[in-house]
Amino acid sequence: LTAFAKTDRNRITRLAKRGHYDRATINHILDEALVCHVGFVEQHQPYVLPINFARLGATIVMHGSKTSRLLTHIAAGHPVCVEVTLVDGLVLARSVFHHSINYRSVVLFGTGHLVEADSDKLAALSAMMEQLIPGRWQAARQPTQQELNATSVVAIPIDHASAKIRRGPPGDDPADAAWPLWAGVLPLQVQALAPVPDTRMPVDVGVPEYLTNYARNKKD
Amino acid sequence: LTAFAKTDRNRITRLAKRGHYDRATINHILDEALVCHVGFVEQHQPYVLPINFARLGATIVMHGSKTSRLLTHIAAGHPVCVEVTLVDGLVLARSVFHHSINYRSVVLFGTGHLVEADSDKLAALSAMMEQLIPGRWQAARQPTQQELNATSVVAIPIDHASAKIRRGPPGDDPADAAWPLWAGVLPLQVQALAPVPDTRMPVDVGVPEYLTNYARNKKD
Repeated sequence: LTAFAKTDRNRITRLAKRGHYDRATINHILDEALVCHVGFVEQHQPYVLPINFARLGATIVMHGSKTSRLLTHIAAGHPVCVEVTLVDGLVLARSVFHHSINYRSVVLFGTGHLVEADSDKLAALSAMMEQLIPGRWQAARQPTQQELNATSVVAIPIDHASAKIRRGPPGDDPADAAWPLWAGVLPLQVQALAPVPDTRMPVDVGVPEYLTNYARNKKD
Repeated sequence: LTAFAKTDRNRITRLAKRGHYDRATINHILDEALVCHVGFVEQHQPYVLPINFARLGATIVMHGSKTSRLLTHIAAGHPVCVEVTLVDGLVLARSVFHHSINYRSVVLFGTGHLVEADSDKLAALSAMMEQLIPGRWQAARQPTQQELNATSVVAIPIDHASAKIRRGPPGDDPADAAWPLWAGVLPLQVQALAPVPDTRMPVDVGVPEYLTNYARNKKD
């Protein structure tokens, strides 16, 4: 299926025209994000924690320590909400009222489970590293059995999802257009600075190409 | 009080050495963020939504349409969790296992209420714009009474809060130090690109200094 159905859970109610339900749009946003924000409930209390993740098809995978409270909660099959937001710019209007942010966000819902087989865990871990640093997984020292055993991996099949996107210039009232104030968009982007080498590294090890050309932005 | 007490709600359990409870550290992270992620519960289901915000002393303020489901929920006094995360860099270790992210995050808890008086609403709206674009509030066309009436503002006094921070180089096992692979940190930063003027603007309006010198990073 190319799109998620609109349900009471994922329907965009405020500014419905900003809502998107097609998987291509949703996947594109998920794949650009560095971290997601996981919402869960314990004893009627909401919690939100940030964590690194990857999308594998229509499933979200995450990893952490065997003792992680978040992963233990997800693995127990409690319902969770996963949200990601990419901030693309500040929208400066003439009026205070019409100031805004250009953004792309996804909110998705599902219930998770533990990933048990070593081969599945390695596939998920590899996807998570590729999400952050494409090309790195092959180069790094692979996990030992002991390291793999100490790592929990959970998978959350996406049951409901929607995206919300704002793009473009400010939406000032026509009556304000002549207001003598700069109006427009200040684009924002996640950018890499110069890599900082670990001091313990032998001096003849060069900076790999996947770092010198690192670009987070995957917009087309 | 200069620090939050550790409670069952805000205590950092995994990697406790990364936990911080002093208000200065927590406030600094909150004040640098562009958006926060609000967790709430409806009929046992967790939800997380992104929203722009500001901190006013020991209170978080947010605004939106009178019809916003999130603001209505917060105004009703249900418990919420507010989370912000700043990603500072990718940590490249020799081993897959020790790869990480340098980040600064805050998780806080409270119950909100509607801000009713116009003067309090204006103070909150001004703080939210200053959080995004210092200097802009004074320059922009102020809200009309009708615009102010259409805007809901909520306040969430911070009851419990903690920060979690990872900084510095990879934590590789000593046995891996000679692995012939670049290791270190790739710093990431939110950066502004060239401002994009609204096409309807008179040509003689210059770009204000608070945009040409825009820097998100408030690290010392």
